[in-house]
Amino acid sequence: MDTNSKKILAAFKKTGARIETKGRVKLRTKADMALYYTPGVGVASMHLAGNPEDTRNLSVKKNSVAVISDGSAVLGLGNIGPYGALPVMEGKALIFKELAGIDAWPIVLSTQDPDEIVRTVIAIAPGWGGINLEDIAAPQCFEIERRINEALAIPVMHDDQHGTAIVVLAGLINAAKVAGKQLKKLSVVISGAGAAGHAVAMLLSAAGVVDIVVLDRAGAIHARRGDLPAHKKELSKLNTKNKKGELADVIAGSDVFIGLSGKGLLHEDHVGSMAPKSIVFALANPTPEIMPAEAKKAGALVIATGRSDFPNQINNALVFPGVFRGALDRGVKTITQPMQLKAAKALAALVGKPTALKIIPDVLDKRVVGTVANAIR
Amino acid sequence: MDTNSKKILAAFKKTGARIETKGRVKLRTKADMALYYTPGVGVASMHLAGNPEDTRNLSVKKNSVAVISDGSAVLGLGNIGPYGALPVMEGKALIFKELAGIDAWPIVLSTQDPDEIVRTVIAIAPGWGGINLEDIAAPQCFEIERRINEALAIPVMHDDQHGTAIVVLAGLINAAKVAGKQLKKLSVVISGAGAAGHAVAMLLSAAGVVDIVVLDRAGAIHARRGDLPAHKKELSKLNTKNKKGELADVIAGSDVFIGLSGKGLLHEDHVGSMAPKSIVFALANPTPEIMPAEAKKAGALVIATGRSDFPNQINNALVFPGVFRGALDRGVKTITQPMQLKAAKALAALVGKPTALKIIPDVLDKRVVGTVANAIR
Repeated sequence: MDTNSKKILAAFKKTGARIETKGRVKLRTKADMALYYTPGVGVASMHLAGNPEDTRNLSVKKNSVAVISDGSAVLGLGNIGPYGALPVMEGKALIFKELAGIDAWPIVLSTQDPDEIVRTVIAIAPGWGGINLEDIAAPQCFEIERRINEALAIPVMHDDQHGTAIVVLAGLINAAKVAGKQLKKLSVVISGAGAAGHAVAMLLSAAGVVDIVVLDRAGAIHARRGDLPAHKKELSKLNTKNKKGELADVIAGSDVFIGLSGKGLLHEDHVGSMAPKSIVFALANPTPEIMPAEAKKAGALVIATGRSDFPNQINNALVFPGVFRGALDRGVKTITQPMQLKAAKALAALVGKPTALKIIPDVLDKRVVGTVANAIR
Repeated sequence: MDTNSKKILAAFKKTGARIETKGRVKLRTKADMALYYTPGVGVASMHLAGNPEDTRNLSVKKNSVAVISDGSAVLGLGNIGPYGALPVMEGKALIFKELAGIDAWPIVLSTQDPDEIVRTVIAIAPGWGGINLEDIAAPQCFEIERRINEALAIPVMHDDQHGTAIVVLAGLINAAKVAGKQLKKLSVVISGAGAAGHAVAMLLSAAGVVDIVVLDRAGAIHARRGDLPAHKKELSKLNTKNKKGELADVIAGSDVFIGLSGKGLLHEDHVGSMAPKSIVFALANPTPEIMPAEAKKAGALVIATGRSDFPNQINNALVFPGVFRGALDRGVKTITQPMQLKAAKALAALVGKPTALKIIPDVLDKRVVGTVANAIR
């Protein structure tokens, strides 16, 4: 372990947990106990037993989100299980509170079976105001999210899919402006057909982009490739120009590269072969598909990464706090695609005059949460 | 709804939730984000993936307890489901924090199937430091607690059973002193063979009491009664004098009555038929099996209830915060019967000179949590 990693681990050990609970009322006297515990609590219990829809007015359900992961696809680290996933979920719970005032708690699962995950989340749902699914691998994440969403009357969002899609679209709206190109006419190459790659492609398509090629490890996904699973069949339909081959084949002449695989490396030659005024989103963490300096040298005009130490950080933390803030405040039960499009546009609009070095607001920009939240209605 | 209930409900609506989350670190700068979220969190994740036993040193697992209920036996209100249960679980989470500094969160379940409950709790367990099961009906609560306990390496306690048993034994130790009787020689009648009745009977037996009659709706449980389920067979063995019949039959000449059914009423005639210097624990909530004034009039020497507005409140809140405080602090994985006996004795010993009006410490007595915690080792 290098020195920097040792320092980070020491900070985590010193802190212990990064979030805790806090009473919103005090228990100082017998009267406090009698009101907020027995016998007072019995009145609230009887009321909610008869009026369950009132639960979100007088319990934690009002403002709470469970951040749930099975640890099957954690950051760029892969399937590292529930204990490996816990620090990430705890970090998201911290961000939920600090940025959006939402009471979130991390829940990591000892199962990776889709049926078990669906059953478990439905079983623990009644007391939560929303469910943030996180770091669950494709393709099972699609079915898991769909089934839970159908079963529950609270907002459910797999952030790796939709949080990523919203923030990428927001960044691309402004990047296109900087390049002087029309969003809908962009030719886009996406590396990675997992949760994020699929959701980004689908949302860009919904935003009007008509030429989208997604690559998995076998290369470009197109209609003539055999044995495609359902989510890749959907992606093949976005490949309207029926492009085939490897990254080098499809990136030549393209306007946009979006790296979401955490794997495939983008070389200077690739960038050099793109159309003029190209846009490169190298979003793998912690190591981008190409370093910004190299991408620039190779001719890219607008470059974004997932990292906070370079300009243009495309980070889900710009999205998920506001999405759930809006949903909780307005009792929204499903995060629809029109809401996602509206959120992306509103987020992009926060950057008054986009430049190559500023296509997306800062994560700590105080306007972000409210702006995204307003789109969720 | 009466005026007092309306006031209580208004207080709950005004408060919304009674607990919330709180960041233990701040996210003010990009450096904060980089340390506590990405990329810093990746270091903690990789470390825990390889060293899961370190999870309790650098995550919420260090100090967290899930308060879990299926809503099948809430207070004295019965099977009112998850929404009815939520205010009680939230109240317990508040008490955990305010009294013992433990980060607890309420989780109410949309299932009452024992297999599903066991599966669900095991599935969500990795991120918690302990599991407090609550208000789950007998007899399924016994199997549910046993199976979860066997599967997990964190403390699991069904508070309705063991929290109640510990606090009742503590009260009885001092009540016996006040009456000048030996604990082990007491003849005890327990009304109610549910979760609490069973656990109290078993712990009193473990403490040396040899004459314990437990009644269910069909009367005294004895060895010759047919078709007894497993937990009632256990109880029948404690009825060493083989007493039979209804409450009136078995209470005559007894030293102690413990009401835990929330049903059967204790009349003055019953109390009048008890041995001299009798002890009456009328623990049904909110309405005791007999009001203290009536019990006194009928001849009882020591009277306790579950309520805060009478002397001698026998309340689980004296026990569960300290039990989990001790277990979390010392990495205790199972709350054993010897620990429970020790906790009861330590709690009783906090009352220097027991009197008829003071057999148990006050719930808000600052010494209670630490004293109980010390017994869990």
